[in-house]
Amino acid sequence: MKKCVIPISGGLDSTVILNHVHKNYDFDEIHALSFDYGQRHKKEINCAVDQVFGKVKSFKTVKIDFISQLFSTSSITNPDIDVAETKDVLGDPQTVNYVPNRNTIFLSICTGYAESLGADTVFHGSALVDSEAGYWDGSKEFLTSINKHNSLNRRDKIKIEAPLIELSKKEIVKLGIDCGVDFTKTWTCYKGQDKACGTCPACSSRLQGFILNKKIDPLEYSINIDWNKFDCEPII
Amino acid sequence: MKKCVIPISGGLDSTVILNHVHKNYDFDEIHALSFDYGQRHKKEINCAVDQVFGKVKSFKTVKIDFISQLFSTSSITNPDIDVAETKDVLGDPQTVNYVPNRNTIFLSICTGYAESLGADTVFHGSALVDSEAGYWDGSKEFLTSINKHNSLNRRDKIKIEAPLIELSKKEIVKLGIDCGVDFTKTWTCYKGQDKACGTCPACSSRLQGFILNKKIDPLEYSINIDWNKFDCEPII
Repeated sequence: MKKCVIPISGGLDSTVILNHVHKNYDFDEIHALSFDYGQRHKKEINCAVDQVFGKVKSFKTVKIDFISQLFSTSSITNPDIDVAETKDVLGDPQTVNYVPNRNTIFLSICTGYAESLGADTVFHGSALVDSEAGYWDGSKEFLTSINKHNSLNRRDKIKIEAPLIELSKKEIVKLGIDCGVDFTKTWTCYKGQDKACGTCPACSSRLQGFILNKKIDPLEYSINIDWNKFDCEPII
Repeated sequence: MKKCVIPISGGLDSTVILNHVHKNYDFDEIHALSFDYGQRHKKEINCAVDQVFGKVKSFKTVKIDFISQLFSTSSITNPDIDVAETKDVLGDPQTVNYVPNRNTIFLSICTGYAESLGADTVFHGSALVDSEAGYWDGSKEFLTSINKHNSLNRRDKIKIEAPLIELSKKEIVKLGIDCGVDFTKTWTCYKGQDKACGTCPACSSRLQGFILNKKIDPLEYSINIDWNKFDCEPII
């Protein structure tokens, strides 16, 4: 029985991974986890719920909102700090949108869960842009390091796989289209308002991914996006 | 301002570390964390509360009891599995008392907290016996690995220090006595009953530590211990 664990935020990348793994890998069981860590864009978890239906053996939401209570330095978990816009984060090695050690925390929980389930693989949603956008914990060095760490385990050496880590957002959107992802049920914007803002770093890179594929992102944005100007068509 | 984070379980090792760091290191602020992970011996947290008083700048209990709900393979978090006794764990590389990936989870949370606080050091309670007793996540290789991982951080390279990792339980009890630890307010037994059982691996190594120092452990045990036979005296 081949099992894996997929942390799914409800964002674009982890949703593409879930669909990609479900369609193209041969796991007998997929076990999904979402993290409620007090994030500003908590509504992403609703998208995760929509996405897992029919694809996973189990789905749990793990409440670790002590992160928002204890880790006060991040715009993502502290409502008093403004989310940094794209223009403010370029070249910043660790932006205010970084949640301290978040991915190590998430992956260490997923790893323990995988050990307990008898799963041998955990998927990690990092994409090429994450390392460039100020997140050390989205880099290839990070991935290598955490795999090396897990290999010290004396019995269950859980492998962390990150199938998107060398992919651009253009390639990720393309993969998502090929896997039949319903993009209306994904949430990317850091701000977590009614509509996606279209200007935060997460929105910017998502929009770029769609535009370079000449496809219209079916999500509603609070800014006007002239899709015709970019020759974009609806996803069929 | 020099700050550190100390995860304190209320057990012998972390209590000795807290007292040792408070007495012999020069941090301006110690920030302590306890983890409520649904452990069988949850009463240890009461000891942590007693120990931190007057020594720390802050103390928080972090509730991560999803561990006991999700990680079903460990005797420490699953009441349906018996705690393995000392005789059953000798030579076992990963015993049923192992909680999957627990120390990586704890330390990754402490590291994120340290980043957020502007602390540069996290203390880790592992002792020599932990690696021998079936815990890869108490070994020196584990410590080296997690420090290497943390060094990838682009801004705050949090150091994990484990001052007891090469010390025997005899040496740890001696250090605790030298630091004036109140051992009546420490809890070691895995079983978490009214009195310590005296036979689980945690009790066994604790008792050995006191006996080799020729001191009486002031904790109450449910088995009879003939301290006179070992020439043990009360700690003054």
